[in-house]
Amino acid sequence: MKNMIIASTSTLAHQSYLEYLLPTLTKHFKDCSNILFISYARPGGITHEEYTAIVRLAFAKINITVKGIEEFENPVQAVQEASGIFTGGGNTFVLVSQLYKNNIVQPLADAIRKGTPYLGTSAGSNICGLSMQTTNDMPIVYPPSFKTLGMIPFNLNPHYLDPDTTSTHMGETRETRIKEFHAYNSVPVLGLREGSWLEVIGDKITLKGNLTARLFGQNQLPKELETETDLSYIK
Amino acid sequence: MKNMIIASTSTLAHQSYLEYLLPTLTKHFKDCSNILFISYARPGGITHEEYTAIVRLAFAKINITVKGIEEFENPVQAVQEASGIFTGGGNTFVLVSQLYKNNIVQPLADAIRKGTPYLGTSAGSNICGLSMQTTNDMPIVYPPSFKTLGMIPFNLNPHYLDPDTTSTHMGETRETRIKEFHAYNSVPVLGLREGSWLEVIGDKITLKGNLTARLFGQNQLPKELETETDLSYIK
Repeated sequence: MKNMIIASTSTLAHQSYLEYLLPTLTKHFKDCSNILFISYARPGGITHEEYTAIVRLAFAKINITVKGIEEFENPVQAVQEASGIFTGGGNTFVLVSQLYKNNIVQPLADAIRKGTPYLGTSAGSNICGLSMQTTNDMPIVYPPSFKTLGMIPFNLNPHYLDPDTTSTHMGETRETRIKEFHAYNSVPVLGLREGSWLEVIGDKITLKGNLTARLFGQNQLPKELETETDLSYIK
Repeated sequence: MKNMIIASTSTLAHQSYLEYLLPTLTKHFKDCSNILFISYARPGGITHEEYTAIVRLAFAKINITVKGIEEFENPVQAVQEASGIFTGGGNTFVLVSQLYKNNIVQPLADAIRKGTPYLGTSAGSNICGLSMQTTNDMPIVYPPSFKTLGMIPFNLNPHYLDPDTTSTHMGETRETRIKEFHAYNSVPVLGLREGSWLEVIGDKITLKGNLTARLFGQNQLPKELETETDLSYIK
């Protein structure tokens, strides 16, 4: 039975890494003394080891030790044997490329389905949807496919950002980009604002955090969804 | 001999489509009474025909007629026989997918090399670089490759946006994204702000418009380049 926290971001402004989620993570990982960290997305091009060190520091506060996937000779086995898994943010193209390269797309999906507690933030949340096609990231590497884990029956847009009505910049707003996605794809997209997350227990998906989330459907007007809404109907 | 205008954006705030470029385009397309418009990137998912109509209206002001590539049975021949070519903005993933699908990547490069006057804006400028990997667009379709025309020996980031120092949003700044690109690629990236363009005459590349542009090199500090700078040294 799936047991997931799928968060928009790891970090809120003026807070430390994962700070706002720690009370939730204490419960989420209550049966884990150690978790596996998938460091592949390595934000800003930092090394896997540097990234794991940041995560280790945050989880030490709730007495959980962390092992980075880069420390294992066999990443498939690492995923299969993990008692909990966290995939961090960074670049989604890099993350997805590495998941395919290391053959852990299927093992990761299997581990989540059998109930291994999972946490994703940003890119690590993006991969929980049907495809990575609503990421905000730059295509700095070419992945073998845009298909992702499909642990939820829709796509996510993490770090969802409302249009800045004061801006004179002519680049597309996030809403325009998602509308463009729907010119080619019928998959619903949930815009998750920073501070929001999804709790997935089995097939039940609930919006958490203090904010509303914005749901985009093909040929539909966007809808604002209240926190604690049961999102299991979206598909 | 190449003869190109590679612009960051089609439209400046509070102006009409292509307005700021029209004096430049009058000279650039002085030998053309008709140009080919490559409408593939179709912004916001509008139809090719709708897109061509917008472009037709703008070029009518300088007495140039426009035929959209969607009006031709044979797009390869349309590119080969065009007396001038404009590729408009929209989604770079869609544009590149369509260029490959219609087999016009090579014919387009050949037409530009033999001297067909070319105008690109936004996505239509992105494809002039070595790869589309520094686009800002959402990966809404999966192109067969990220490789683009290579008409200039570096990559572009159109609609370049300086960091908003007042924002509490934790998503990556444009500079952070380009830095991530350089963790995996050695190609220089030129951040072209809205209102800037490159003039390419043969192998000479000159920065035009009123603004500076920002040059990012692997393992180098970014540099601000003045307008009218000869950029032919960048590679």
